[in-house]
Amino acid sequence: MRHAVIGAGSWGTALASHLVRAGHPVRIWARETEVAAEIERSHRNSIFLPGAELPPGLGATDRLEEALSGVQVVIVAVPSEHCRGLYRRLVTMLAEGASVVSATKGLEIETRKRMSEVVAEELPGRPFAVLSGPSFAIEVAREQPTAVVAASLVPGLAETLQQAFSTRTFRVYASDDVVGVELGGALKNVIAIAAGIIDGLGYGHNTVAALITRGLAEMSRLGAALGGRPDTLSGLAGLGDLVLTCTGGLSRNRAVGQALARGETVAEATSGRTVAEGVRTTRAAFDLAKSRHVEMPIAFQMREVLYGGKPPRVAVDELMLRSLKRE
Amino acid sequence: MRHAVIGAGSWGTALASHLVRAGHPVRIWARETEVAAEIERSHRNSIFLPGAELPPGLGATDRLEEALSGVQVVIVAVPSEHCRGLYRRLVTMLAEGASVVSATKGLEIETRKRMSEVVAEELPGRPFAVLSGPSFAIEVAREQPTAVVAASLVPGLAETLQQAFSTRTFRVYASDDVVGVELGGALKNVIAIAAGIIDGLGYGHNTVAALITRGLAEMSRLGAALGGRPDTLSGLAGLGDLVLTCTGGLSRNRAVGQALARGETVAEATSGRTVAEGVRTTRAAFDLAKSRHVEMPIAFQMREVLYGGKPPRVAVDELMLRSLKRE
Repeated sequence: MRHAVIGAGSWGTALASHLVRAGHPVRIWARETEVAAEIERSHRNSIFLPGAELPPGLGATDRLEEALSGVQVVIVAVPSEHCRGLYRRLVTMLAEGASVVSATKGLEIETRKRMSEVVAEELPGRPFAVLSGPSFAIEVAREQPTAVVAASLVPGLAETLQQAFSTRTFRVYASDDVVGVELGGALKNVIAIAAGIIDGLGYGHNTVAALITRGLAEMSRLGAALGGRPDTLSGLAGLGDLVLTCTGGLSRNRAVGQALARGETVAEATSGRTVAEGVRTTRAAFDLAKSRHVEMPIAFQMREVLYGGKPPRVAVDELMLRSLKRE
Repeated sequence: MRHAVIGAGSWGTALASHLVRAGHPVRIWARETEVAAEIERSHRNSIFLPGAELPPGLGATDRLEEALSGVQVVIVAVPSEHCRGLYRRLVTMLAEGASVVSATKGLEIETRKRMSEVVAEELPGRPFAVLSGPSFAIEVAREQPTAVVAASLVPGLAETLQQAFSTRTFRVYASDDVVGVELGGALKNVIAIAAGIIDGLGYGHNTVAALITRGLAEMSRLGAALGGRPDTLSGLAGLGDLVLTCTGGLSRNRAVGQALARGETVAEATSGRTVAEGVRTTRAAFDLAKSRHVEMPIAFQMREVLYGGKPPRVAVDELMLRSLKRE
């Protein structure tokens, strides 16, 4: 099966490389001409995935129609804020029957919608799946053992992707809980910002472990309110990705939290070429939680920090040192 | 209330220091005369908690009866293998009505019993609670924000301990799920050995995150089979402690896994003065899982490595790269 990966950020590049190694013909679309050219010519993406050697078989282009020509599976790995516009462009370009696989981990801020909802609106009737889980791009590019989830409501699609995407070191588990998988990948970025603040304030591992525990509880509460299954939030796409993002290496969202704790403004902390999805997701999560009357103390405090000017130390101390109750 | 802490390992020393700072008169019992003397004279425990300054108010002794004299709350922080013998000695020494708080994170290997069961046998009718959660000793000694759980079946006891033990930076949550809290603290050490093997083999954060996710699932399965609540295993004493032990700094159990992955024998990897509870707990967990027909693939593989001579790489590869199924 011919695959296209749309978006040559770190995750798109790693996924495309993996799919080539899994034996598929793959073309990746990069918005930036120079990124596409470097992937084609030097088998590198030094801007978005430095340090990784890409397989020579990976084709790249900056022309969307060329990337999509003759493709049966389209994996979309662009930031959530660009998704609706991109999916609109795909309407006339996708082959009949081609499936869309979302690898975006975020919510649409204005509408608070998940990517599956955006696709349903822009590409109605199109077979859809979401791919998510604990997967630092550089480790996937280096073929470290990784396990993720593919979820779809289309009968058999998750299993088809499981077979097509899995290799010895990249394990794909199949699920039908699209809502749970999407929320896990999006909401963990909110908690990761708080983890970064804890790091930046000089607090220790005990504090981060308590935050992760509380974070999973509030992610699960919102997940359940929106129709996701608790098992999914406690699985790879929820807990697994939460742990990875809050403890393993320096994720983009955690770096934002650290910068805020050091005294940088939100504008300073979020500048740069790589998008911190958690900043936007915090606002959408807050709105969703409020409208569903779900208690999400961490998301509420992060919203105060990011959009209300609350000092990060005050927010974290209110979270960690609040009045005692039963667990 | 006068407190005694029995056991001057890292955790006992940190807990005792904390209780002094929380305003209680506290005496700690050390098996080693030189450890007791150093705590009394220099306010240090350079063998078991190097790098921490202990509060001058902390009294220490190597005579058990002296430590227990006039005490209302006895916190026991000795390795599981010494617990039954210690509790037997306490029979004639404890004041009437004095409570026992277990801070041991392990199971009795010969009987597969939890510490609450050991106490019920050796000190029948004695008010009992367990204290557990994500708490590196050195961070507690340095007053980093930490959250733990106190669980008891005695009405009001968990709440009494919550009030007595909590400070601004040390938060105690109350629970009545003794089984869940005890199993969380014990079983996470088994998963931590596997996490150490993954580190030692050079695998990355993605692999550890997947392991933690699967680890919590199997801990919860055994917990449920033995009467613990899923919420407890997903809480501070389960998930929180699991994440801490598998990702934060180098815990003793993770270090054993790393050493095994480097090719050390089990005897070499477990030598030294500090006890790796996970090695013994692995055997007890395996036996419990087998007798209750609970699937615990990580505990099963760790038993093969620790007691069956299986190479660590083979065990981890069988875990991480096994046949695909639905999550």
